[in-house]
Amino acid sequence: MTTLALAKQLLTEQSITPDDKNCQKILAARLRAIGFEIEEMHFGNTKNFYAKRGNNAPLLCFAGHTDVVPTGDVNQWTFDPFTPTEHNGKLYARGAADMKTAIACFVTACERFIAANPHFSGSLALLITSDEEGDAHDGTTKVVEQLKQRGEQIDYCIVGEPTAVNQLGDTLKNGRRGSLSGNLTVHGKQGHIAYPHLAKNPIHAAAPALAELAATEWDTGNPYFPATSFQISNINGGTGATNVIPAVVNVKFNFRFSTEQTESSLKTRVHEILDKHGLQYDLDWSLSGNPFLTEAGQLTEVAQRAIGEICGIQAELSTTGGTSDGRFIKAIANELIELGFVNATIHQIDEHIELADIDKLSAIYENMLIQLMK
Amino acid sequence: MTTLALAKQLLTEQSITPDDKNCQKILAARLRAIGFEIEEMHFGNTKNFYAKRGNNAPLLCFAGHTDVVPTGDVNQWTFDPFTPTEHNGKLYARGAADMKTAIACFVTACERFIAANPHFSGSLALLITSDEEGDAHDGTTKVVEQLKQRGEQIDYCIVGEPTAVNQLGDTLKNGRRGSLSGNLTVHGKQGHIAYPHLAKNPIHAAAPALAELAATEWDTGNPYFPATSFQISNINGGTGATNVIPAVVNVKFNFRFSTEQTESSLKTRVHEILDKHGLQYDLDWSLSGNPFLTEAGQLTEVAQRAIGEICGIQAELSTTGGTSDGRFIKAIANELIELGFVNATIHQIDEHIELADIDKLSAIYENMLIQLMK
Repeated sequence: MTTLALAKQLLTEQSITPDDKNCQKILAARLRAIGFEIEEMHFGNTKNFYAKRGNNAPLLCFAGHTDVVPTGDVNQWTFDPFTPTEHNGKLYARGAADMKTAIACFVTACERFIAANPHFSGSLALLITSDEEGDAHDGTTKVVEQLKQRGEQIDYCIVGEPTAVNQLGDTLKNGRRGSLSGNLTVHGKQGHIAYPHLAKNPIHAAAPALAELAATEWDTGNPYFPATSFQISNINGGTGATNVIPAVVNVKFNFRFSTEQTESSLKTRVHEILDKHGLQYDLDWSLSGNPFLTEAGQLTEVAQRAIGEICGIQAELSTTGGTSDGRFIKAIANELIELGFVNATIHQIDEHIELADIDKLSAIYENMLIQLMK
Repeated sequence: MTTLALAKQLLTEQSITPDDKNCQKILAARLRAIGFEIEEMHFGNTKNFYAKRGNNAPLLCFAGHTDVVPTGDVNQWTFDPFTPTEHNGKLYARGAADMKTAIACFVTACERFIAANPHFSGSLALLITSDEEGDAHDGTTKVVEQLKQRGEQIDYCIVGEPTAVNQLGDTLKNGRRGSLSGNLTVHGKQGHIAYPHLAKNPIHAAAPALAELAATEWDTGNPYFPATSFQISNINGGTGATNVIPAVVNVKFNFRFSTEQTESSLKTRVHEILDKHGLQYDLDWSLSGNPFLTEAGQLTEVAQRAIGEICGIQAELSTTGGTSDGRFIKAIANELIELGFVNATIHQIDEHIELADIDKLSAIYENMLIQLMK
């Protein structure tokens, strides 16, 4: 069965996050047929599995998710989002790029590699979740916890997230920035605007502190990461009435941070600035993920060589963009990259990929297996 | 008929702004009986009248409003708000302090003064509106326009607004600050918080400008006015989502300004600050009133002497507090003060005044008439 045929099987399943439908069942059957042992690791209503073939070092693990984001207004789609459709050299379906087709590529790459190298030097694994697009509490993070407890250590991890910008192979991710959010409430004292000496305006108190936070250079980045970025997403203060000084102003902000920072270093500096301005405040923090990095080395070079051979281009390393499950897996993986299809249409109406890219991505994965474990 | 009896007549009328009910009819009948000519000046659904007796200089005008603010929850009132009730030495009713009882004091002061001095040296007027508590578009401002067109010039104006803080006579207003409001929208460019280089955060852009506005010393006031005050009442920016940089932030602010400033001087300085910070913005201005002042002189001294004789205390001059119709009348009045009951319960549940203060306020007004025009 071709990679396209397996992808269509998966894309037909209406696996809107965190519902896997039958995706993992389909995948498990294929993997068992080539010698994988399947360990189901379900938490809450999230299905996950860890499939493994062999116990020798090195261990290479493919990681991905079977869940997809909602379709949006189905009537706006050119083709039904769960009826994978070939049209003008493209494959249309929700999840085509993000990331069921990449999982199909994992499987067929493994099938060909094992058929050609039944006694390869190492072991293979697949870590598959159905909760990457949702709150991600019961997905990869829980699986990794269990694997860590038993001392499982991955040498090479390849996450199939769509990383290409304009064409397959142009970009791979060798890390991601961290994401730290703050929910700040600055307290003042409510009063009539005609009697400001009886009130304390929290918007006035907050403004210079926010100006300083916005102007602060947190770091200048490093060879792998852009500079840490601070952004306020929401600010709300006021009773609605135009003659009342409000009691509080609320500010929501977010850091995307490089490996030059830690959760703790950012918190310390923010509190220093707020305290320096004499604010009375509450501040609730929420860490979405620490930054992680695989420095340029064996795995990135193997990937770049595979891409060069299959696509004829030089892949750039990047650490930009949002978060992915890589942030969890890196805790037990020596080297981790993300490499998948073009991400231009992900989460959108008419999500699609180039049909010609499907066999290419499968070939890239296979090429990497050959380089690392033949 | 006593002042109290006339006050009760007026307080029984449910004249919630801008509805006069029968208040002006009651007043007009009383004034005609002592020689006033009544000129009705109705605009829209607002009733106003200008009553005048004589044409000689000097012209003294009493000014006030028959409309009251809504009652709030009637069930919370100890006594029905439109059933004026004497209890424990107090008179309870909506409008008792603000300001129907003061109008009754105007009338009985005039009655006694004219009875004792039928050929007094000057002329008397009353300017009465039913739209002071509402939007005030069709009330005093329109009457003043008409009077101005015909060249009417008032020598002494006494507005009956409740100006006392703790006891009758402790404070009179010889001016009010101006009020100028701004509705500022700062424009940025919306984008994903993970890609701030593709967006422009309007909250970040606005923060240093707001900090500078909040820290600016506009003036230090003068012997009659406290320093001009700038206050932000509302700030709102953000889509609600915590991963989106918003397109705009909206800021509502207000100046209460002294006679050291003008509408134009404040606007110029605000635009200078916003422009200096390179903001892209829209700013809509709204002037509620210019500051006005009657310097300490004949009218304030006459009022202080009357208060000293009747109440035995020294009245302080003040220009604090909100706006009043004085801002309109000052345009055609050489000297204008505001002098009325204790304002502690105005606009509240169980609005009330001291019964003993009623005849005293009427006597203060009469004393001023005698000093100025006997």
